[in-house]
Amino acid sequence: MRLWGGRFSGEPDRLVQEFTQSIDFDRRLFHHDILGSIVHCRMLGRQGIIPPEEAAQIEAGLRQVEEDFQKGQIQFAHALEDVHTHVEARLRELIGPVAGKLHTARSRNDQVALDLRLFLREAVLDTIDRLADLQETLCNRADEWQDIIAPGYTHLQRAQPVLLAHHLLAYHEMLRRDAERFQEAFARINVLPLGAGALAGVPYPIDREFVATQLGFDSISRNSMDAVSDRDFVVEYLSAAALAMAHLSRLGEEIVLWTTSEFGYLELSDAFTTGSSLMPQKKNPDVAELIRGKTGRIYGHLLHVLVLLKGLPLTYNRDLQEDKEALFDTIDTLLPSLTLLSAMLATARVNAERLAAAAASGFTLATDVADYLVARGVPFREAHTLTGRLVQRCLATGHTLADLPLEEYRAISPLFDSDVYRIDTWASIRARDIPGGTAPGRVRAALQEARQAIAACRAWTAGQRERFARLPDHTDAGSVRSPHG
Amino acid sequence: MRLWGGRFSGEPDRLVQEFTQSIDFDRRLFHHDILGSIVHCRMLGRQGIIPPEEAAQIEAGLRQVEEDFQKGQIQFAHALEDVHTHVEARLRELIGPVAGKLHTARSRNDQVALDLRLFLREAVLDTIDRLADLQETLCNRADEWQDIIAPGYTHLQRAQPVLLAHHLLAYHEMLRRDAERFQEAFARINVLPLGAGALAGVPYPIDREFVATQLGFDSISRNSMDAVSDRDFVVEYLSAAALAMAHLSRLGEEIVLWTTSEFGYLELSDAFTTGSSLMPQKKNPDVAELIRGKTGRIYGHLLHVLVLLKGLPLTYNRDLQEDKEALFDTIDTLLPSLTLLSAMLATARVNAERLAAAAASGFTLATDVADYLVARGVPFREAHTLTGRLVQRCLATGHTLADLPLEEYRAISPLFDSDVYRIDTWASIRARDIPGGTAPGRVRAALQEARQAIAACRAWTAGQRERFARLPDHTDAGSVRSPHG
Amino acid sequence: MRLWGGRFSGEPDRLVQEFTQSIDFDRRLFHHDILGSIVHCRMLGRQGIIPPEEAAQIEAGLRQVEEDFQKGQIQFAHALEDVHTHVEARLRELIGPVAGKLHTARSRNDQVALDLRLFLREAVLDTIDRLADLQETLCNRADEWQDIIAPGYTHLQRAQPVLLAHHLLAYHEMLRRDAERFQEAFARINVLPLGAGALAGVPYPIDREFVATQLGFDSISRNSMDAVSDRDFVVEYLSAAALAMAHLSRLGEEIVLWTTSEFGYLELSDAFTTGSSLMPQKKNPDVAELIRGKTGRIYGHLLHVLVLLKGLPLTYNRDLQEDKEALFDTIDTLLPSLTLLSAMLATARVNAERLAAAAASGFTLATDVADYLVARGVPFREAHTLTGRLVQRCLATGHTLADLPLEEYRAISPLFDSDVYRIDTWASIRARDIPGGTAPGRVRAALQEARQAIAACRAWTAGQRERFARLPDHTDAGSVRSPHG
Amino acid sequence: MRLWGGRFSGEPDRLVQEFTQSIDFDRRLFHHDILGSIVHCRMLGRQGIIPPEEAAQIEAGLRQVEEDFQKGQIQFAHALEDVHTHVEARLRELIGPVAGKLHTARSRNDQVALDLRLFLREAVLDTIDRLADLQETLCNRADEWQDIIAPGYTHLQRAQPVLLAHHLLAYHEMLRRDAERFQEAFARINVLPLGAGALAGVPYPIDREFVATQLGFDSISRNSMDAVSDRDFVVEYLSAAALAMAHLSRLGEEIVLWTTSEFGYLELSDAFTTGSSLMPQKKNPDVAELIRGKTGRIYGHLLHVLVLLKGLPLTYNRDLQEDKEALFDTIDTLLPSLTLLSAMLATARVNAERLAAAAASGFTLATDVADYLVARGVPFREAHTLTGRLVQRCLATGHTLADLPLEEYRAISPLFDSDVYRIDTWASIRARDIPGGTAPGRVRAALQEARQAIAACRAWTAGQRERFARLPDHTDAGSVRSPHG
Repeated sequence: MRLWGGRFSGEPDRLVQEFTQSIDFDRRLFHHDILGSIVHCRMLGRQGIIPPEEAAQIEAGLRQVEEDFQKGQIQFAHALEDVHTHVEARLRELIGPVAGKLHTARSRNDQVALDLRLFLREAVLDTIDRLADLQETLCNRADEWQDIIAPGYTHLQRAQPVLLAHHLLAYHEMLRRDAERFQEAFARINVLPLGAGALAGVPYPIDREFVATQLGFDSISRNSMDAVSDRDFVVEYLSAAALAMAHLSRLGEEIVLWTTSEFGYLELSDAFTTGSSLMPQKKNPDVAELIRGKTGRIYGHLLHVLVLLKGLPLTYNRDLQEDKEALFDTIDTLLPSLTLLSAMLATARVNAERLAAAAASGFTLATDVADYLVARGVPFREAHTLTGRLVQRCLATGHTLADLPLEEYRAISPLFDSDVYRIDTWASIRARDIPGGTAPGRVRAALQEARQAIAACRAWTAGQRERFARLPDHTDAGSVRSPHG
Repeated sequence: MRLWGGRFSGEPDRLVQEFTQSIDFDRRLFHHDILGSIVHCRMLGRQGIIPPEEAAQIEAGLRQVEEDFQKGQIQFAHALEDVHTHVEARLRELIGPVAGKLHTARSRNDQVALDLRLFLREAVLDTIDRLADLQETLCNRADEWQDIIAPGYTHLQRAQPVLLAHHLLAYHEMLRRDAERFQEAFARINVLPLGAGALAGVPYPIDREFVATQLGFDSISRNSMDAVSDRDFVVEYLSAAALAMAHLSRLGEEIVLWTTSEFGYLELSDAFTTGSSLMPQKKNPDVAELIRGKTGRIYGHLLHVLVLLKGLPLTYNRDLQEDKEALFDTIDTLLPSLTLLSAMLATARVNAERLAAAAASGFTLATDVADYLVARGVPFREAHTLTGRLVQRCLATGHTLADLPLEEYRAISPLFDSDVYRIDTWASIRARDIPGGTAPGRVRAALQEARQAIAACRAWTAGQRERFARLPDHTDAGSVRSPHG
Repeated sequence: MRLWGGRFSGEPDRLVQEFTQSIDFDRRLFHHDILGSIVHCRMLGRQGIIPPEEAAQIEAGLRQVEEDFQKGQIQFAHALEDVHTHVEARLRELIGPVAGKLHTARSRNDQVALDLRLFLREAVLDTIDRLADLQETLCNRADEWQDIIAPGYTHLQRAQPVLLAHHLLAYHEMLRRDAERFQEAFARINVLPLGAGALAGVPYPIDREFVATQLGFDSISRNSMDAVSDRDFVVEYLSAAALAMAHLSRLGEEIVLWTTSEFGYLELSDAFTTGSSLMPQKKNPDVAELIRGKTGRIYGHLLHVLVLLKGLPLTYNRDLQEDKEALFDTIDTLLPSLTLLSAMLATARVNAERLAAAAASGFTLATDVADYLVARGVPFREAHTLTGRLVQRCLATGHTLADLPLEEYRAISPLFDSDVYRIDTWASIRARDIPGGTAPGRVRAALQEARQAIAACRAWTAGQRERFARLPDHTDAGSVRSPHG
Repeated sequence: MRLWGGRFSGEPDRLVQEFTQSIDFDRRLFHHDILGSIVHCRMLGRQGIIPPEEAAQIEAGLRQVEEDFQKGQIQFAHALEDVHTHVEARLRELIGPVAGKLHTARSRNDQVALDLRLFLREAVLDTIDRLADLQETLCNRADEWQDIIAPGYTHLQRAQPVLLAHHLLAYHEMLRRDAERFQEAFARINVLPLGAGALAGVPYPIDREFVATQLGFDSISRNSMDAVSDRDFVVEYLSAAALAMAHLSRLGEEIVLWTTSEFGYLELSDAFTTGSSLMPQKKNPDVAELIRGKTGRIYGHLLHVLVLLKGLPLTYNRDLQEDKEALFDTIDTLLPSLTLLSAMLATARVNAERLAAAAASGFTLATDVADYLVARGVPFREAHTLTGRLVQRCLATGHTLADLPLEEYRAISPLFDSDVYRIDTWASIRARDIPGGTAPGRVRAALQEARQAIAACRAWTAGQRERFARLPDHTDAGSVRSPHG
């Protein structure tokens, strides 16, 4: 390879092989590749495109390949480029040249789209279930902590007292939207691309509906050129995951804040903190920090795939191979993040006294004082101004609103009376008695409604799983097999 | 301001004002701010929170403010920070201190969320309609060009012949998914946040359902803390827009390619090309290039808002103000891009001869030859190899598959017979007669189905628009008012 | 325009005009466009490419156009597309057809690159000066606050005591690297592209060195095709700005944290906080929040331009027009952010007692206790373990390390003696007496060195400015004209 | 773990371990970790902080650990979290408790920064050398192809003829700026952070200058808090890499375009193309496509780390651990991309006839015709218009500029004479005889200058490597060990 200066650390062939191979990551689709092939070949036999007995022979061979894979007996090699080639090569070893009939009426272009969709639809179910797990933990703690008052913040300044349960249920809402988005994406993921061939469809009397039904797809792709060049379904998962991670990063940030000495509201179980190699006293919220830090990672993956797609002419281009690692890593990041946040919250302790004290301090009841005046006929804007002056008066005299003498109140407005002292955090909370408000009854109702929503979500994923459990492969269809459980 | 060195070009107060003001861009929400206020004050009166006659007075005042705005008689000033302040200030000028009662039982935190949702749900309808416009153009041209054959590409290499209509309908599919995503986002956008107050709900007996109904919302927010800190609905629009722009960039790229001298398949109407200041002969596809280029812009906006949200503790933080410009610019980019692509395609001419010639050249029928062998019992994998040798033979002898002598065919495989010459582009296309394939009948059916889908989409947006037309403001609810039409 | 359905809100010509025009933003280059044209035409005359008297006539005309512009007498119109066309059109009005000779031996492709480089090199100087302003404020406060102890954090947990000045100087270091990066980028920005023509160079005996010298460029571009398609210099500015904003966002975050009730270390001047429309007591650090929030905006701009460039074939493509708005907005965001942070810090007050108390609490001296044992021969790893047990003992018995009885110490290790009580925050700080450490002498030295670095930076920008002040336009070369000062 | 529902697939301890461990990727720093430790312990002995004989013992032990590592005898386990722990654990096995003295006067916070800087500075050298390889290939081919004319494009429309060598050297310029940026980043990477301890410096009389000299660092960090929280150096590498990949993606795009049937300018060696599983005739430019596709990947990594840093309070936060994978993958993508592009270009063939024909067609000489008129006194703007009319005349009559009758020329302008036919592609190219232009002499000079620049670059990296070769570890300091060579 003198031609370009002998600088390469290896042969160009090897370099090209390593650069273009995908088996290092697409082996994760091994099971799904075989599943798709089983149904494809069953259909070929049924339609008489290949002799039924050969179809049976191929199917048996494929089952053997799957078994070999499950036992760890497949040798992976860069020379065999991708998962499809590995499966077919092993099949040929097992059953001879008839293996060559399996690739009739399909192309790797539609095959890889199939494998990825089979994989991703399961990942969506796993994702929704993990979301539900975290939602359930949020509900459990909200239930448990229903009587705990916390300071509600805006601009990270104490603003108004709220129930801690109300705060937790805000996260439930975010995750609920996340679950909806994943669920909606599912419908566009669970579409059969097989039959698109390389790009134009195939010249065989294939039965796409049969394949779709056998594989549990909701529909079949409507345009072959789109089917092989479409990666919207990957972007949809990544977009939904990016937003979900944004939510988790907010929760992570609050955990970091709340476990500081300064806030001191929350204590994590030792299992979720780590020490320092230098400072013996440290107990760091590493898991929460990492979840926050990994958010950028998911954003990066989303950007990557969007950039990939930009300006690609139809149909399949090799650039598309780059979709998988981003997707896999996103799943492997999001799922354990959900699990760990759930476990962390489930085992954390809150300092209710400290929360309550903070909720009562810092003039968090000033709005209620303004509303007191409004109730006595003062236009809100004026009441707001008057209360602002009260606060200044307190700051000047070292008082809180609770111990400011009545004459000081009256000096600001004669409408104040001794019942102004009845304003306290509980009164403030109870007063916000509207749908979505923090009043105890409202929070209790919200909690109940949340549990119903979670149950509905779980029922939906269970229904899908049941359907997939009846797929023609008798082995366990497996889950996403995230290395992080 | 000696303290920090006298280097500032202005007073800090002015700098702070300019840095924190939002009126330069949120004035776009003027109409929606008033609309929300009208219904809010109507509800306050109805519930007896403020006297009904004062509510009527405020509503009349608000209508006057709207009229002033429509006539361009509002003076905008950075000192008045944002749209809400401008409206209330003008209202006070018109009706005096009673204006101060309008802000009872709400905060700018829930108010701005309301305004943005009112605005965005209209933008979604406009977006879907523009998508439908482009889809319709694609269908119209597909209809017109049904007999035109084009080379189908993979890796930008000619692969197999397809109908040009089939190629166009691939874009229809992409846009159809786009429309679905926007439609699904609509349900999460069209949620009433008002009543969340600053963060905890409000201590007044407000009627959120009344407000929701009057304003045409599908539902009300379920948690006040979430309601003021949630910008998922912005990210959802941006995510869907990013993917839509990815699709448009692919179409833009193809227009750039197809109008080159080298491809020469497409000629744009002069209206969509521009010349060169230096080179008199140039006719450049600037609009297509800009659409491709603006894709990064939308990706950037999406990332901006995602980055914004990362790690934000609850509830409202001022960072959230940064959501608007990204959103507005995304709409102002996506909508004219759709319109211009539609107009460009509607007026472009194709060079059918050149397309057909390209579709027939470059061994695009090799797959069909392999399939010929498969039909005669050769396993596909072997047929693939044999055809590869045929292609090499052609290249070595300067033949095409169409004029390679039969003995050469037979030298490769005795299964070849003279009917191999019946393989031509039309035969190839007709053979792909499966759902989603490029056979003429399939494409015709797909076209019909596409038109139905477009009609259903338009019916849905029309239904929503009708509903919004009955909103309590008698003025035109306006559209997104994109400066680019 | 029946052809595509009559849905457009305007004529396609108008739509195309609006979509492709750049005058709405590139008018900001008006001054630079004229400056470049003056020197270009002077060179054309000098080389005899156009008659010298015509060159003089054109130059006089250009000066008049500049004057008109300064007086606001230029009418901007989308029909005239861009800044170059506006200048030439006005010139023609003033001096007639001879204006048509100005564009000899150049193209808009090299002209726009020229304008943008002329503009950006000034922006770089402004940026570095603003960085220096903030660095100076950091130094001033570090100077003033030299005796204030603060808790140093890792994982947002109190870790070890440090000097507040040391903390501030950490930011100085970040900004110093920022300034270096901008300075290095300057060398690649300040390169003359003119002469590249449309892409291939121009067939006239032009004198590029003369133009470069007259315009204060450091060098001339070496390849014409690169010169018109290169936007590296824009990306370099954006990359450096993104990292600078990352630093500012860290400072912004710390301001938000330190001004919370919980931390309570910092109080901002009223000028840099805002109130709440609902809560009368609020004093929110809005400016710091916005700086944090705007970080995503700059990241988005960087990505936009990177995405733009991806996969663009040579040479100029219209996509490149999209570089300007991202660049302008980045400058308009970064510069006031620097100024406002400087002003905010310059006027903030710290609560030294609270900082000192926090620095002393939370076992921040545990490392020093471990080091005490190390000094007595215990391997660090073992000392670390023993100190960990001491901390546990304190937690169990309600002691701090300062009041834990000696026998408890000795129970852990007999090496402890009464001098262990000499460990306090000041001792801890003084002990870190190594280059880069927090010992007072080291911090003083660092401060001095920092001031020298700032002075060197300012001297460099002043040198460049002086050079630009001698450019052939006698008007003020202007600054970046950021709307935010 | 009943507490959170028994849904986890593993114990939380294991989940946390897996989620927080870094040994799966930071093992790549194994060698650098030991190198840093050797010098650190040597310094501790020299300064009497630990007994010299123990220092020697530790150093010997570390050398043994390195040897074990080189032999693949280190067992990696998630329980041992990171590379630092693995090294120390193995060391303890080898030499007993004295191993515990190695961590005196340092923390993992400064240690990991050290390791990463040691690693990255080598990666920078490798990167620059690979850039030089590709630059050299560009120069070699430019040399070889000096007489080949190519069409120069703007807007992907043929614009003006250029030398193919000129086109190639445009890429040389881009890569040259890339190399400069990496070289400048090197100075900020090659800074010793050790001594910063956890964040405040260490209370031992360490000699940082000695360590820096021994390890070949250019300088030492100036502020300990900055030293442990700074990841600018990672972002700098990623920023420079993102821009370099943008350049490679442009080259990749051109390779894809130029190897289409439509362009037909370039043929790749079989080693760099792949076939199709379905279409026997295909020869796809997969490597070029993948390089283009991987660009988004690098953009994503850059974004990831920028997002990571946004809003992080000082000093070290666990989020920072997320910097490594993005960095490693960027290096592992950029380096083979450079190598493969170099190899691909070195072995590609061009179709000179087709290039020349394209360069002459499409009115690419129209600018020269306009310049012909300018030379005869017509203002450029008017000459441009007249030539535009000539082109229209040609199009109307089916002529090219070369065969348009002279009377047609004269009908447009009487200034045309028979010498107008002397305008041809070579004349056009030769006329652009200015610095940076495409005239043959200019291109030759540029080529020579380019080779000098490459040599200077290589000399610089060689100088750095020589310096590193004298580091205290006698083993080969190794290179970046990219799995792709």
